[in-house]
Amino acid sequence: VFQVVRSSSIPLGDQLVEKVTGLIETGRLPEGSRLPSVRQLAQRAGVSTYTVTQAFERLSAKGLVQSRPGSGYFVARLRRVPVPARVELEVSAIVDSVLGFARRFLEQDKVIVPVGSGFFPAAWLEEAIPPSTLSKLGKSGAAFESATVKGDPALRELLAERLRTASIPAAAADLIITSGASHAFDLIARTLLAPGDAVLVNDPSFFVLHAQLRALNLRLIPVPMLADGSDLEALESAARLHRPRMFFTQSLLQNPTGSSSSAANCHQVLKLAERYDFLVTEDHMLSDLAGAGAVTLAQIDELRRVIYVGSFTKLLGPGLRIGYIAAQSSLIAPIIKAKVLNLLAGSALCESVVREVLASGKYRRHIVHLRDRVAKARAVSVFQLRQVGLSIESSSSEGIFLWARIPPGMDPDRLVIAAQAQGILLAKGSLFSPTGQCRGYFRLNVAYAADPLLLSFLSEQFSAAA
Amino acid sequence: VFQVVRSSSIPLGDQLVEKVTGLIETGRLPEGSRLPSVRQLAQRAGVSTYTVTQAFERLSAKGLVQSRPGSGYFVARLRRVPVPARVELEVSAIVDSVLGFARRFLEQDKVIVPVGSGFFPAAWLEEAIPPSTLSKLGKSGAAFESATVKGDPALRELLAERLRTASIPAAAADLIITSGASHAFDLIARTLLAPGDAVLVNDPSFFVLHAQLRALNLRLIPVPMLADGSDLEALESAARLHRPRMFFTQSLLQNPTGSSSSAANCHQVLKLAERYDFLVTEDHMLSDLAGAGAVTLAQIDELRRVIYVGSFTKLLGPGLRIGYIAAQSSLIAPIIKAKVLNLLAGSALCESVVREVLASGKYRRHIVHLRDRVAKARAVSVFQLRQVGLSIESSSSEGIFLWARIPPGMDPDRLVIAAQAQGILLAKGSLFSPTGQCRGYFRLNVAYAADPLLLSFLSEQFSAAA
Repeated sequence: VFQVVRSSSIPLGDQLVEKVTGLIETGRLPEGSRLPSVRQLAQRAGVSTYTVTQAFERLSAKGLVQSRPGSGYFVARLRRVPVPARVELEVSAIVDSVLGFARRFLEQDKVIVPVGSGFFPAAWLEEAIPPSTLSKLGKSGAAFESATVKGDPALRELLAERLRTASIPAAAADLIITSGASHAFDLIARTLLAPGDAVLVNDPSFFVLHAQLRALNLRLIPVPMLADGSDLEALESAARLHRPRMFFTQSLLQNPTGSSSSAANCHQVLKLAERYDFLVTEDHMLSDLAGAGAVTLAQIDELRRVIYVGSFTKLLGPGLRIGYIAAQSSLIAPIIKAKVLNLLAGSALCESVVREVLASGKYRRHIVHLRDRVAKARAVSVFQLRQVGLSIESSSSEGIFLWARIPPGMDPDRLVIAAQAQGILLAKGSLFSPTGQCRGYFRLNVAYAADPLLLSFLSEQFSAAA
Repeated sequence: VFQVVRSSSIPLGDQLVEKVTGLIETGRLPEGSRLPSVRQLAQRAGVSTYTVTQAFERLSAKGLVQSRPGSGYFVARLRRVPVPARVELEVSAIVDSVLGFARRFLEQDKVIVPVGSGFFPAAWLEEAIPPSTLSKLGKSGAAFESATVKGDPALRELLAERLRTASIPAAAADLIITSGASHAFDLIARTLLAPGDAVLVNDPSFFVLHAQLRALNLRLIPVPMLADGSDLEALESAARLHRPRMFFTQSLLQNPTGSSSSAANCHQVLKLAERYDFLVTEDHMLSDLAGAGAVTLAQIDELRRVIYVGSFTKLLGPGLRIGYIAAQSSLIAPIIKAKVLNLLAGSALCESVVREVLASGKYRRHIVHLRDRVAKARAVSVFQLRQVGLSIESSSSEGIFLWARIPPGMDPDRLVIAAQAQGILLAKGSLFSPTGQCRGYFRLNVAYAADPLLLSFLSEQFSAAA
């Protein structure tokens, strides 16, 4: 019964584990019964004793067999424990849809064309973290070190230097590593804002942020996005009317519109922040994709009332979850405390990966290649998508996102459902709008936006509607 | 006024920064005034132009001076930036001292003998994650994957299997990966408790937990630890009087006392939880170090009102920050949502390290070796520490911690300071007591407790006092 198939493509060890598991689960090897010895089993299965030993280890790890020193392996007592039924989340409709979408793209459930995803394909990132980097960190014991509360000092020094090069006066001591940008937003909002405070957010902007702020009982005041940045008139009247404590914005390659604010717009936004005395949290998640000479709020304000949030999730490694906050000392101090109380410290392993990649120059080289790749993909995508009937306003050659409008009269919700049936994940505009606007818009990821399956799907849908 | 002291042990640059900061803060260099040029200042201070440039960079980074290209450095307008009212988390002196300690041991500032640390030395852990594991995960692209919201499904399946083997009915769907156990406690407390709620904690117990609960404005009700577990009389009267919503406890190898609750004690605690209708969060951070046959609340309750918190921080890899929560669906659902709103998802890289180490049987083998090593270290440490005059009640052969009493009449605070001067980090008992008790006790890490430097230090101190 233990005989394995040597000609199979399934490894012999896997076959053996599966066989023994089956024999135990069907009761043919009853609880408490003794298994053949390693040598006997190797003979009967026709495999090496090494393979058998490995298989026993794996069966032990699964809790199916137990070793009793000196007397061999036995079938473990299989306490059939009740598996609790699963209850659905109790969340408001908005948070639900947001989480639903987040989960859908994070779990990539049968998605063939994740054009609604915010992530680059792994193939676009992998040159930056070769396996040798991880094995080097393995040798240096990064997995066994405790991270410091603020995060790896050498990493913070490298990040502060990078910011200073971009004319942002940051000190390593006033920089804190977070588990990605969303973690940064949550720590900032929890620390510097109080329930009931008004906060400004761009309409449209990143939906997870809206859910985070709403969950903290903050009042979201929308500030429309125009081609050159935030709508200044709307910003001023919102500031006058609502006396907001903070503005969450993204000056470079904004998610989802892909547009960057002009220098003049940044200047005016900052003047309003000063006049109406609110803080600004600026998302720099995608800034490294922007060319030199781009102006941001953090630069012209020199981190007085602007809080800088950076991240390596999108441009380096989504599996690392490393972001950071730079701000003046009086603002960063309570954020550090909040981080400690939230999770004590981050992952020294992930922090050291980013440190290595920055210090070795691999990140810099990777970004040069990535920008190039993005520019080419944008050019192709914009051309092809316009061919099939999407309207795309931005003519920028930078950034991961295209903000595209479907032909008037088409129902975006039906489009999403039809797309899903073909394995195409679409991110519709209203998801990004705190006021439910932007119907008819879609955020497209340039890495997938010229996929033939997507193009033929859109072409069919649009010609059927016409 | 800028002259620095060349013979001082303080670096010249630091002196200069301090001087200029003082002049600005006292108003002797008023806002907007122009600073001497780099060359002038170098002359007047008697330092190199390089030192001055570096000092200006640091003053800029601190927001005290501003460079205006072409015209030099000026004292910045010291806009007392709108610091929001809640900028100081309302934390008590206790929380501050706790964070001070946490920072001290996490940053291991010049510590030679970290006997107050809660971590094993890297050398005791490293067999479990060989560099080949990391390079394998590098090849499979784990750094480029987004983690799912709940955490790696295969990892959750392995964890649920392990729990079921220990007679705890867990389903992978009702298990969520966290960034360590402290993250788990924070998510649980934020989600299932409301400000003002009474919560029970053991006295003594892990101090970061106390800080977390206090920061959420929960009322901490202490339940003393006795040799066989929580003091049942105190627990019952606290439950009757305060109607707590939750009890945070650790039945196996409790931090800091190292003691495990008896089966009878667990049974009585659970009866009280049922009678007074409170939930229990059980910390299993160290449970894998306990021998077979140990009984826990999660086992006898079968995860009805007990929430299981596990972690790989102490026994596998502090640099991974992987913990988990298993609970019944209705409790886990809001915790999942809180995790998304807190940081979206964890690190796929770190999750996959734990998955590999569990699935390959490496973790199981490592734990066998670690238990053995701990038992030997305990035996040696207990003998040696008793020799020098410490009193140790526990005779258990398991667990990382020894709970030791210094001779009566000795001042524990002085001992800590004297130890620090010799590079010995001590964790004094009162740190772990929400009521400031346990003076005269110390928590010792068995991996360092027989260090000759520690033993000779204690021996000297105790004989001087006698």
